[in-house]
Amino acid sequence: MDIDARLAGLIADMKLEGRYRTFIELERLAGEFPSALWHGPDGAQRVTVWCSNDYLGMGQNAAVLGAMHRAIDASGAGTGGTRNISGTNRQHVALETALADLHDKEAALVFTSGWISNLAALGTLGRVLPDAVIFSDALNHNSMIEGIRRSGAEKFIFRHNDPSHLDELMSAVDPARPKIVAFESVYSMDGDIAPIAAICDVAERHGALTYLDEVHAVGLYGERGGGIADREGLSHRLTIIEGTLAKAFGVMGGYIAGPALLVDVVRSLADSFIFTTSLCPHLAAGALAAVEEVRAHPEQRRLQERNVAMLKAMMQAEGIPVLDTPSHILPVIIGDAHLCRQTSERLIADHGIYVQPINYPTVARGHAVSPSGHCRHRSAHSSTMRRASPA
Amino acid sequence: MDIDARLAGLIADMKLEGRYRTFIELERLAGEFPSALWHGPDGAQRVTVWCSNDYLGMGQNAAVLGAMHRAIDASGAGTGGTRNISGTNRQHVALETALADLHDKEAALVFTSGWISNLAALGTLGRVLPDAVIFSDALNHNSMIEGIRRSGAEKFIFRHNDPSHLDELMSAVDPARPKIVAFESVYSMDGDIAPIAAICDVAERHGALTYLDEVHAVGLYGERGGGIADREGLSHRLTIIEGTLAKAFGVMGGYIAGPALLVDVVRSLADSFIFTTSLCPHLAAGALAAVEEVRAHPEQRRLQERNVAMLKAMMQAEGIPVLDTPSHILPVIIGDAHLCRQTSERLIADHGIYVQPINYPTVARGHAVSPSGHCRHRSAHSSTMRRASPA
Ligand SMILES: Cc1ncc(COP(=O)(O)O)c(C=O)c1O
Ligand SMILES: Cc1ncc(COP(=O)(O)O)c(C=O)c1O
Repeated sequence: MDIDARLAGLIADMKLEGRYRTFIELERLAGEFPSALWHGPDGAQRVTVWCSNDYLGMGQNAAVLGAMHRAIDASGAGTGGTRNISGTNRQHVALETALADLHDKEAALVFTSGWISNLAALGTLGRVLPDAVIFSDALNHNSMIEGIRRSGAEKFIFRHNDPSHLDELMSAVDPARPKIVAFESVYSMDGDIAPIAAICDVAERHGALTYLDEVHAVGLYGERGGGIADREGLSHRLTIIEGTLAKAFGVMGGYIAGPALLVDVVRSLADSFIFTTSLCPHLAAGALAAVEEVRAHPEQRRLQERNVAMLKAMMQAEGIPVLDTPSHILPVIIGDAHLCRQTSERLIADHGIYVQPINYPTVARGHAVSPSGHCRHRSAHSSTMRRASPA
Repeated sequence: MDIDARLAGLIADMKLEGRYRTFIELERLAGEFPSALWHGPDGAQRVTVWCSNDYLGMGQNAAVLGAMHRAIDASGAGTGGTRNISGTNRQHVALETALADLHDKEAALVFTSGWISNLAALGTLGRVLPDAVIFSDALNHNSMIEGIRRSGAEKFIFRHNDPSHLDELMSAVDPARPKIVAFESVYSMDGDIAPIAAICDVAERHGALTYLDEVHAVGLYGERGGGIADREGLSHRLTIIEGTLAKAFGVMGGYIAGPALLVDVVRSLADSFIFTTSLCPHLAAGALAAVEEVRAHPEQRRLQERNVAMLKAMMQAEGIPVLDTPSHILPVIIGDAHLCRQTSERLIADHGIYVQPINYPTVARGHAVSPSGHCRHRSAHSSTMRRASPA
């Protein structure tokens, strides 16, 4: 077959459907978040980034950057090894201890990304538990879907945030089979929040493990920044909580927190954990500083909440059809991919506002482009609004 | 079922077989590489790390660390976004340009790890080419195996480094089907090198794409540090070259380099590239500095070659059954997992030499523990030997 023609056809199709992605080239300006330089067709132009997942600006926080600089001076850049082969450093161990504590769990394990955390944890647990069944929320993130696929376990998809559908599906499965219920707390595209307690009720009734992705919630919710489960006092009902170091914590990497035995099984058997160079020590040090910073400053989260409410009210007053979400994510669903792209192009070109259009496969076709948004204070001194379109 | 009992049983089995992994906790000391502090049961102790993949010490190179510090000062820590959603930064674009040039390719794409590079590239190409067949070397790395598995393509395994077996397998497959031949240049466990030209001969005869993992070769071989294909003037015969930023380049991250169309397809369709926060800009900046440093200093590679030869000669003189490899990797195969572990324990406890025992699943059962090694100069001023047991 003509391979080039086939590949060129794929690209042409994407362009036709308006879902071919051209990356916006940014230059982040430390200290001026959420401003950045956009290197576009007409040269460099200053824009306000309304679609960052660096929700609290921790990626430019002085304590975080300071910890990174110091760790680079002390220990250098990469680890030069997988975790097992000279790649476990003091900084990993310290971070894992802090993350376990943040979620009130026995143990935690750090990965190179949140994406890998989900692949590794779900992929391994679903595989080593014989005849396991995984119940997955219909809107779960790609990384969970990939983990479940990799596990080879049987999968049932329950309707989004619907505990009674989950119950129905679970009731139809042999009670003796090991079960895992996998879901998210804050859904990054729709901005809604899972009924965690109700889902745990169902899961417990069926003796299932619970697996919660708090990627868009850690650092932002809860007394200590542990996420929605933390805020609702439900951490103990989740078997495993998964999070990222790359969004509200501003750095890069991911993790799971859970029972020591379970974490040890993932550590010992997950290919995507075993066969890759470990996270740079200075990233672990920076993430640890971010966890501590977030914990010490709950007022930043409260300020962000107020700003989200303000932005939402302003958008509603303008008649912009923003979804009325209970989270910091404010999606505006435009529907048509081309129109969505045009809207975004005008925002950046005419107004210096960068809101990335989100289209298939990140959201379903027809939901195309939801410049979702939230608003927060950069610091006690300046107030800035921006939108976040996470995923 | 009793999930805890099942998981505890898995761990107990690993311990019984001697393949339960306890991570050695290190504290890297910038500027004193390959020395590090080992935080073991008896407190901190200075050790020499003989099993790092930071083959040239780039992880502590002043130019690399300087570039990272400057990029953190300029742009902060994480990107706060996926590549599509505010996560493409100037540093990524600059690095991709340099990597494409390093391998004489039209384009390159950076990932968060070499592991993800293989998963994304093979997983996507094998999936989007209808009815594709992938021919995979028997000793290919886990990340390629996972990529091939993910692609869903039919797979044939050819005997390690055996072009005639490859030819035999390819001849039996419908000539019209799209084909990919996937292999490595330097095999990290056995230290041998693929017959790249001969494999390309076979692949070309059958109209196949060629995919070469140069993870353990980039930075170390070739006029410009482009790897074995670079050294042998074969870059143009490989469709895609895959590499890591985490070993000889001393940082973290991975990449592919190849034809623009093919790279664009992976960029546009690979889940593991799309749905994850992009590499921190300062890591891209550090890696770029490492690529330039390696290019500017071929004498470091030559020094390393001499030191490898010296270490090998010394080991042979002592009657240590080191494999006579054509690369910088010097494996010593002990065979029994328990014995291997004991050897390693004595080396670190009694001699301050850290050589990680390597066992299943990184190497086949019965090949257990190969403290493989190589030797290099840290700088023009001090000569140090160490062994590398990569993977
Ligand atoms: C719900 C969810 N889980 C996991 C991830 C992956 O996290 P990371 O960016 O750290 O790979 C993302 C987005 O990136 C996400 O939105
Ligand atoms: C041959 C090979 N390919 C790919 C990888 C993965 O690279 P990375 O460590 O950057 O994930 C490794 C080892 O880590 C490897 O040995």
